[in-house]
Amino acid sequence: MNDLSEHLKHDRFAEYIGIERFFCKDGYWTARLKVTENHLNGLGAAQGGAIFTLADYAFAMASNTDQRTSVGLQTSISFIAPAPLDSVLSASVREISRRRTVSIYEIEIRNETDNTLIALFTGTAFTVRAD
Amino acid sequence: MNDLSEHLKHDRFAEYIGIERFFCKDGYWTARLKVTENHLNGLGAAQGGAIFTLADYAFAMASNTDQRTSVGLQTSISFIAPAPLDSVLSASVREISRRRTVSIYEIEIRNETDNTLIALFTGTAFTVRAD
Amino acid sequence: MNDLSEHLKHDRFAEYIGIERFFCKDGYWTARLKVTENHLNGLGAAQGGAIFTLADYAFAMASNTDQRTSVGLQTSISFIAPAPLDSVLSASVREISRRRTVSIYEIEIRNETDNTLIALFTGTAFTVRAD
Amino acid sequence: MNDLSEHLKHDRFAEYIGIERFFCKDGYWTARLKVTENHLNGLGAAQGGAIFTLADYAFAMASNTDQRTSVGLQTSISFIAPAPLDSVLSASVREISRRRTVSIYEIEIRNETDNTLIALFTGTAFTVRAD
Repeated sequence: MNDLSEHLKHDRFAEYIGIERFFCKDGYWTARLKVTENHLNGLGAAQGGAIFTLADYAFAMASNTDQRTSVGLQTSISFIAPAPLDSVLSASVREISRRRTVSIYEIEIRNETDNTLIALFTGTAFTVRAD
Repeated sequence: MNDLSEHLKHDRFAEYIGIERFFCKDGYWTARLKVTENHLNGLGAAQGGAIFTLADYAFAMASNTDQRTSVGLQTSISFIAPAPLDSVLSASVREISRRRTVSIYEIEIRNETDNTLIALFTGTAFTVRAD
Repeated sequence: MNDLSEHLKHDRFAEYIGIERFFCKDGYWTARLKVTENHLNGLGAAQGGAIFTLADYAFAMASNTDQRTSVGLQTSISFIAPAPLDSVLSASVREISRRRTVSIYEIEIRNETDNTLIALFTGTAFTVRAD
Repeated sequence: MNDLSEHLKHDRFAEYIGIERFFCKDGYWTARLKVTENHLNGLGAAQGGAIFTLADYAFAMASNTDQRTSVGLQTSISFIAPAPLDSVLSASVREISRRRTVSIYEIEIRNETDNTLIALFTGTAFTVRAD
């Protein structure tokens, strides 16, 4: 199991909205979120901010392993399909590039029930400290 | 005061995280968020997801006025400076383009105390219904 | 072979910079570019604009098949590795979403010689006419 | 007049497509492009790649002053209005953030004739060397 930076274990906002962290079979840390009433927008689907937060947290975990402390610089997200109440969303991570101070990850958010692609996220992170 | 789509008044996630909606002196609906313990990441600043949600909610309000119901398609956000505990963040909206079915808005998130730019967001919305 | 909109065959800028269109074995239209002196930036690698143009042209071809005429709305590109003089870059297309009026594609630009990922592009297109 | 990195003066691709560099009255280097037949797409307007290249070159100039050598990491561009044949497009630059190794710029591309906003670009650059 690779080493997750200590500060990622104490992300208050991720906890507050109910994001669950897990170590997936592909060998990296990722996250899931069960869509509850608290996550809905006025149209009855998961709000974009909840979906972004899930993707961004998976991105943060990917860029904060191996004694690196990284911050997100620029991210892009495309919203593809609505995520209904009670669906379980999970993030899968693809490392696009990893250099000494800059890394790029792509995150897919899918509905676990039917594997629908809900959102596609790309983020660039900057490593502020590498122990 | 321009007319805000009914569904934006019932955004559960925005309420849950404490976003406050207001009608600003420039004549449009926007939003603010006071950064509390619940919004912090493990480094002690507002988590990216909380900042994105504020920007995205202001974007949603801008693209859901005048009897339009719109959904966000693609957004980009740059994170510029950290937002500390107890700071008050507010969103200001700039309409970049508005056509019949597609509109583009830019949102600046600033720390109200010292006017620091915290994040810059651009989003494209698609109008699914215009009454 | 699927049908490419007529106007894509008459893209003057793509021709001017030397982009070649081809129908790949995966069953869609895509494009390649051999990096010549004309495409270099001052650091001796392919300029970002040349790489973007290749990705954007593949995106345009993907969103202008089947009697659709589409225009790009918002795109994001991450630059990952430099493309040297004489390298051949090719675009591969992934359809992320396709609805009646909005479609989303992801394009990878790779160096054909060693398969290095040069750039990752995501674009949202709007269908202005569907015959 | 601030100092432009030497390599930006030798950008072959910018020259090839006809981009003109100038020092604007606001005190920074920027660029313009007259739309000719060579820049057109099949719909008779400036191709997205030509517009991106203009924005990206202005971004490169902004992030390569003062003895910095920077490379673009991630950029987002929204296409807002078509640019017709013979229009003159110019880029204006807004520095969003500038830190030791990372800087963020926003570029507006406007039609000089009527000041129409043609495209809005945001880019994050990484400084690989600061003399």
